[in-house]
Amino acid sequence: MTSRSPDTVTEAAGLRARANAEALERLWSSEPVLVDVRPALEVVPGMTAQTILTSGAPLAWADYFGGQRSGIIGGALYEGLAEGEEEAGELIQAGQIRVATCQEHGCIGSLAGIYTASMPVFVVENARDGTRAFCNLFEGPSPARLNYGVYNDAVRESLTFIQDVVGPMLGAAVRRLGGVPLRPIIRRALHMGDELHSRNTAATLLFTRELFPALLELALEQEESVGRTLEYLSSSDYFFLRLSMASSKATADSAHGVEGSSMVSGMTFSCRNFAIRVSGLGDTWFEAPMPDMEPKLFEGFTKDDVEYMGGESVINETVGLGGFAQAAAFPLQEYQGGSAERMIATNLEMYEITLGEHPEFKIPYFGFRGVPTGIDIYRVVETGILPAMDVGVAGRGGGQIGAGTLRAPLECFEQAAAEYRRRYP
Amino acid sequence: MTSRSPDTVTEAAGLRARANAEALERLWSSEPVLVDVRPALEVVPGMTAQTILTSGAPLAWADYFGGQRSGIIGGALYEGLAEGEEEAGELIQAGQIRVATCQEHGCIGSLAGIYTASMPVFVVENARDGTRAFCNLFEGPSPARLNYGVYNDAVRESLTFIQDVVGPMLGAAVRRLGGVPLRPIIRRALHMGDELHSRNTAATLLFTRELFPALLELALEQEESVGRTLEYLSSSDYFFLRLSMASSKATADSAHGVEGSSMVSGMTFSCRNFAIRVSGLGDTWFEAPMPDMEPKLFEGFTKDDVEYMGGESVINETVGLGGFAQAAAFPLQEYQGGSAERMIATNLEMYEITLGEHPEFKIPYFGFRGVPTGIDIYRVVETGILPAMDVGVAGRGGGQIGAGTLRAPLECFEQAAAEYRRRYP
Repeated sequence: MTSRSPDTVTEAAGLRARANAEALERLWSSEPVLVDVRPALEVVPGMTAQTILTSGAPLAWADYFGGQRSGIIGGALYEGLAEGEEEAGELIQAGQIRVATCQEHGCIGSLAGIYTASMPVFVVENARDGTRAFCNLFEGPSPARLNYGVYNDAVRESLTFIQDVVGPMLGAAVRRLGGVPLRPIIRRALHMGDELHSRNTAATLLFTRELFPALLELALEQEESVGRTLEYLSSSDYFFLRLSMASSKATADSAHGVEGSSMVSGMTFSCRNFAIRVSGLGDTWFEAPMPDMEPKLFEGFTKDDVEYMGGESVINETVGLGGFAQAAAFPLQEYQGGSAERMIATNLEMYEITLGEHPEFKIPYFGFRGVPTGIDIYRVVETGILPAMDVGVAGRGGGQIGAGTLRAPLECFEQAAAEYRRRYP
Repeated sequence: MTSRSPDTVTEAAGLRARANAEALERLWSSEPVLVDVRPALEVVPGMTAQTILTSGAPLAWADYFGGQRSGIIGGALYEGLAEGEEEAGELIQAGQIRVATCQEHGCIGSLAGIYTASMPVFVVENARDGTRAFCNLFEGPSPARLNYGVYNDAVRESLTFIQDVVGPMLGAAVRRLGGVPLRPIIRRALHMGDELHSRNTAATLLFTRELFPALLELALEQEESVGRTLEYLSSSDYFFLRLSMASSKATADSAHGVEGSSMVSGMTFSCRNFAIRVSGLGDTWFEAPMPDMEPKLFEGFTKDDVEYMGGESVINETVGLGGFAQAAAFPLQEYQGGSAERMIATNLEMYEITLGEHPEFKIPYFGFRGVPTGIDIYRVVETGILPAMDVGVAGRGGGQIGAGTLRAPLECFEQAAAEYRRRYP
């Protein structure tokens, strides 16, 4: 056991406190703005025509399995990089198709999080410091989607529609508006039953209303796809999730890299592992096996059908939304189970492991108390309270089979705390 | 004291129970649909060019005072029925301008509730039985509005804009859509922080989205006022209040007139009196002086500034919304005061004085328990629990000066119960 003088302890505590205040301030002052919608190849740093991005900390190709593996292969087929599944697998193995992680490229993956070069992505820029993040678009309300590990004719059709119609039209509308600030939408949606992860109903409506004047102008210029774009926007209550994710990623990345900070700046998972990143601990991902979840499944499915295929939407919890704002979204009981009492208790617990209360994102039920923001690895380790997350649930064989709640595994935080002690003795 | 045999008591109780079940069923099965927007003169039964409608049970002209009187005179000026205030008063006194109540004409008045012949009104039809109700349009976000007793150049300009631009455009859009069902919008809005009386934010957005496709088509046909109509819709979170009121009026009227029912089928107030109507007691209004309210006032106002000028938006409480659904709308604390705990307690109390829980309008916080519907005069008298209402607050001299909560006066219910005993001995 290393003995440390009281002075050293105080000095280290002082560094940590100052660094965490700085990291938290960056989370709070983030001003994410949707500035464009463009094909990934045009805007995502390091993207190539042969790259496929997927969720989670890096894995060897052989370690991807189930829906996440199917999703990556589906991405290769959609992009025309291979003729069939077998060939796709061989080309990946040979390195001719490159599989990389979303996180390395400023992207954030929903579920399996499959990105290919042609897919349109939201370009969200943090006006605070120019940090950019990207997220591709919600595929639509069918439970069978590429990001849930399914690739077939219907999925290809949805993706093509988004690539050819929705993406270009949204891009044109957003550019015409000179960008759409997302912070005011998130703030208002928290007062309208959304927690911005598993519920984005109000945010989607608010965003659609922002876009309408530009869409109207485009329609007057004989853009025929305005009507179909509006239909897409109106049929997808989850549309805004991808925007809240890109917003949270641009926010969290902006708070990453503060020397001495013990604040979590990223959470992600693949089919195999859950992982966290810490602001003051560089680009290391601290990994642990996936924990159990509490799912509420669609009719006809059982807990045995549940399969992990990755997921990075938990970036929303990283900045104080989703599981950290459950008491703003009581209607979620219907979708992901639980009760109002349970949601309140969970939400209150999150205040125990965070550094502060957001000055603008507030929960009406708590008398407009700010959402708990900035997970501190030390508080997690000391209290044993684990970050709560609201997630979609994928099923074996692909497709969404429900929704539920998840707690991040303690081991990630213990590893990170050990590394913190080594790095800041 | 009259003595009654046990048989008579049982028979009377049986009649009341059956009648109340029927009245409640009518409330529950109401299917209000916005079918048109037209000038009052064209659609309101009994409306004439010289008629002005106002809120509350009938009063002699001499009994109207303050903002409600100013509002009626303002209506006469707006409609061009008189050159000045004095002349307007004289013509009303002489019966050449007719002042009547909204309720006599199937209309429902917001605050002072001033209706003139040219004003566009929502035409809401209850698809269940064809009952029609009407409500005029929200004047816009300025606190100085005709229905708050103010008439000046700015008010005239707003009213003219609504008459010339918004009303015709909404009418065209609604007719093109073949009507807009309101029940699904109300159901969804209750899950998005609205109680549909003092908060209509989500309902307004949902309604606007319904209208988009028709507005888009109208824009393509070179209708220039689409953009301005959209601006109006986007600037008024309270826009939908008039639709929820017309919807509630069509619902409550449909449940009125059930022989033997002790269910409240209308609540209203003027500058002088609060009044209720009971389904099985004909068209009598049971009146009592206005009770105290608990206001939360805008900066710079005190309780001494509060003035009653009428209000019929409490029709929403009559069918289980507003004060009967406060636990669906925690953000309202900011606007009308109180706390989440208080809203929950108030909402729970309303279950004590109502006949049943709505099968479709539900409160997420209560685990999707249906809103309490169908106020029973007997339950009010027996428990002493008074119906809670969320209302806008008008100020002396006119204009909105805040919002707050109100309890209906017990005396109305006692009078109605006495009348019920006389009528159904």
